[in-house]
Amino acid sequence: MLLQASSYFEMYADAPVTSIFMLRSKSGPGQFIRQEAFWTTPQVPINEYVDGYGNICQRIIIPAGNFTLETSVVAECDACIDVDMSAVYTPVEALPDHVLQFLLPSRYCESDKVTELASRIVEGVSPGYAQVEAIRQWVYAHFSREYGTTNSSTSALDVLQSKTGVCRDYTHASIALCRNLDIPARMVVGYLHDLKPMDLHAWFEAYVGGRWYTFDALMEKPVGGRIIMAYGRDAADVAFASHFGSVFLNKMEVSVKEIC
Amino acid sequence: MLLQASSYFEMYADAPVTSIFMLRSKSGPGQFIRQEAFWTTPQVPINEYVDGYGNICQRIIIPAGNFTLETSVVAECDACIDVDMSAVYTPVEALPDHVLQFLLPSRYCESDKVTELASRIVEGVSPGYAQVEAIRQWVYAHFSREYGTTNSSTSALDVLQSKTGVCRDYTHASIALCRNLDIPARMVVGYLHDLKPMDLHAWFEAYVGGRWYTFDALMEKPVGGRIIMAYGRDAADVAFASHFGSVFLNKMEVSVKEIC
Amino acid sequence: MLLQASSYFEMYADAPVTSIFMLRSKSGPGQFIRQEAFWTTPQVPINEYVDGYGNICQRIIIPAGNFTLETSVVAECDACIDVDMSAVYTPVEALPDHVLQFLLPSRYCESDKVTELASRIVEGVSPGYAQVEAIRQWVYAHFSREYGTTNSSTSALDVLQSKTGVCRDYTHASIALCRNLDIPARMVVGYLHDLKPMDLHAWFEAYVGGRWYTFDALMEKPVGGRIIMAYGRDAADVAFASHFGSVFLNKMEVSVKEIC
Amino acid sequence: MLLQASSYFEMYADAPVTSIFMLRSKSGPGQFIRQEAFWTTPQVPINEYVDGYGNICQRIIIPAGNFTLETSVVAECDACIDVDMSAVYTPVEALPDHVLQFLLPSRYCESDKVTELASRIVEGVSPGYAQVEAIRQWVYAHFSREYGTTNSSTSALDVLQSKTGVCRDYTHASIALCRNLDIPARMVVGYLHDLKPMDLHAWFEAYVGGRWYTFDALMEKPVGGRIIMAYGRDAADVAFASHFGSVFLNKMEVSVKEIC
Repeated sequence: MLLQASSYFEMYADAPVTSIFMLRSKSGPGQFIRQEAFWTTPQVPINEYVDGYGNICQRIIIPAGNFTLETSVVAECDACIDVDMSAVYTPVEALPDHVLQFLLPSRYCESDKVTELASRIVEGVSPGYAQVEAIRQWVYAHFSREYGTTNSSTSALDVLQSKTGVCRDYTHASIALCRNLDIPARMVVGYLHDLKPMDLHAWFEAYVGGRWYTFDALMEKPVGGRIIMAYGRDAADVAFASHFGSVFLNKMEVSVKEIC
Repeated sequence: MLLQASSYFEMYADAPVTSIFMLRSKSGPGQFIRQEAFWTTPQVPINEYVDGYGNICQRIIIPAGNFTLETSVVAECDACIDVDMSAVYTPVEALPDHVLQFLLPSRYCESDKVTELASRIVEGVSPGYAQVEAIRQWVYAHFSREYGTTNSSTSALDVLQSKTGVCRDYTHASIALCRNLDIPARMVVGYLHDLKPMDLHAWFEAYVGGRWYTFDALMEKPVGGRIIMAYGRDAADVAFASHFGSVFLNKMEVSVKEIC
Repeated sequence: MLLQASSYFEMYADAPVTSIFMLRSKSGPGQFIRQEAFWTTPQVPINEYVDGYGNICQRIIIPAGNFTLETSVVAECDACIDVDMSAVYTPVEALPDHVLQFLLPSRYCESDKVTELASRIVEGVSPGYAQVEAIRQWVYAHFSREYGTTNSSTSALDVLQSKTGVCRDYTHASIALCRNLDIPARMVVGYLHDLKPMDLHAWFEAYVGGRWYTFDALMEKPVGGRIIMAYGRDAADVAFASHFGSVFLNKMEVSVKEIC
Repeated sequence: MLLQASSYFEMYADAPVTSIFMLRSKSGPGQFIRQEAFWTTPQVPINEYVDGYGNICQRIIIPAGNFTLETSVVAECDACIDVDMSAVYTPVEALPDHVLQFLLPSRYCESDKVTELASRIVEGVSPGYAQVEAIRQWVYAHFSREYGTTNSSTSALDVLQSKTGVCRDYTHASIALCRNLDIPARMVVGYLHDLKPMDLHAWFEAYVGGRWYTFDALMEKPVGGRIIMAYGRDAADVAFASHFGSVFLNKMEVSVKEIC
């Protein structure tokens, strides 16, 4: 399917602040970027670079005063995501080299500390895709979606206690549980068609059956219509904006629509 | 300056042909891509990847029949290019690692075979930028620009004999002469504002005074207004289209204009 | 100085276990590897690869039974490490792209949660090297070195409470405090000449004054004689051995000596 | 099999000369480096880096006077190389991205200019491994091995005329012919057990049947026992020594032996 997505940010800073954004998509498996744009007002110098995960990053000195940033993208992506309950566990010795890093614990996914819960959730479930789906369904069923209950320091451990949060928190919890079972899992951020309320979104991928599969613990069912902006271990790697100073976000609008 | 450029290709193939294009720009030193698009008719699957030089490549199976490809880009780039006749020769031991490869001879730049000419052109010229400029001016002065006198097998040696050719040939000759003096030189392809007649263009960069400088042997004077699409050792690396089969190019249009 | 170092491990596994080791050094800034060896008994297939930080990793299926691993290295390295109390803070906008990742919180370095302590330690200290040195000295002065008080789940937050631990813990605490001040900091593991008792070692580097400097919170004074095996964000990235199953370490010997 | 190989060079320079060596091996598909060493007399600073093909390179300023360089390596490698006459041609659209560059013509392999000969050699041979083997056998049968008939400027075109040369020339001719058929081919340099007379060696790999296969046009039959030092498009990329100035090679010794 062909999706057109855009994001719009109005910011204000009292003094110049260095910020790093991750708001541009690139072509990759399952996604081809037909068209893409990135504009700021005022126009400022932008240092664009590619990080260690292959994400496109923009380093900007946000000037004092008002600052707006607009992006848009037209991307071909899959209307449905692949589902395969029979995809088996890929043993560590068979994982591609670059996948191994997604087995490790990370800032917001303390996978080394969720052994009991992970074991309980997947009890009796056959190793592989079915385990990841069991985790996803468990998180979906037990968490409630509430804005404002978590912040940028909230980790999987925290949210497995509180069981409330936003897409980011659902994702951290799911990833920590997968990695505990030695299933590589990574965070994905981007756009999701038909997300309600519309926002930038976060979900995860798990590596089973010899490939990455898409999972989203915030959704009841597997749904496609996703434009990927960045991959990483967790939200530390893929924040859409990292400000090294005080920046006020006065307005943020996100839209995603299908085009013919 | 802010430039808007576009390219349009009408092709025809009797049977499906695999082709590799290098027609998308990315942000980098001296260039920021504000907006960018890549469309084909009919729409076909596209495998986009990044080559060893960092160029964005599109691998496409061109279907039998008519096929059109359109690209556009809006880029901030420098209106003027840096000129520094005092930039000195950078000795090989001081070159950055990734620059070293541009000292080597390549398919169309047989730098090992132009010693006498290179020495003659730079006789009495102080090592560094001034030598590269002497080479550029020599090629500009001695070559005549004629379409159809060279083809995809024509190399620097050939064209240093015939002294006719197009931007690609001027560039190969210049690069071969620079490398002969142990000055790293690389080919650049992209758009040039005010090029007459308008076309995709090729020029070169040489590494002196601790950085890359832009040179263009087809132009009388140093001019800016360039959008870079790809870097490489020579035309083998940076062909805007490589067809693995027979594809007829029925029409090609290129435009570059300044926008406010 | 020329150092010869070796490590020796006797392991036992009931059943085959996949493990990843990071026990080989490579040449790099301040270090040239003259000689290097890696042997196992029994000899087994080894999949060696380079991770995202440039570290050389060995993936091995440890067979059931006894398994020994021996490595040795002869490296030229600096006898003294650079110290420059006047090296100033490098602002985020001036950091090289690949350094930016070392500003982020990570699994064992919750830099987002140590603001108060970091501010207190560096109060009145001028931004840059002097701040990092103040942090290093604070950790050295307040921590006590005790084996067995921490484990593989212990993070900077934990150890800033307990104030006891080993080199790994000293390092995590220091890194978390540096990053809180927007000073990039990364973990280093390797050999240290004259370490007592001899062991594999961990320390850190901080990026100030436009380059990386070496710091070691376990040592009273800055000392050189270091062979680097791996760089990373924290111990999650640079564990010298990660076992995906049960492996008993029956014996471990490390030696480092100067040779002429 | 476990091979021990060494190389020894005595050089002399009137004045300091910057040189780049490619004389160290690393672990990779089909090869694991157990032990490795690199020594010079006098000891000099060495800048070691990895080039765009993944080869380890040493940049050294050779001092005025005598200079010796010794390397040794102990590597596990395959005693036999894979042979599969039924491996089919891999179409360009199915090649991995990083393999595509080995389709292009290069300085010493003018693949665009050998169409008639390539077609003749493989006439009636089924596309894939069998074609590469036909090329290899044709070169083996028609070329005679003679030292001193070619030099560092000799290319495939030259040697397809003269039909004499050394391993480097046999390899260039074979690669040019393969690439003409849109079969990716790359040059390999390293050690070959039982090569007579013993020397550093060059051979090639071709990508058919979805993987790289080893071919050696200097040998009558497929033989294993190879330690790889470097991969590249042709000899421009993988010269074991590139001197940017005058260096006399007074002595060179190479040895390869099997150990238990």
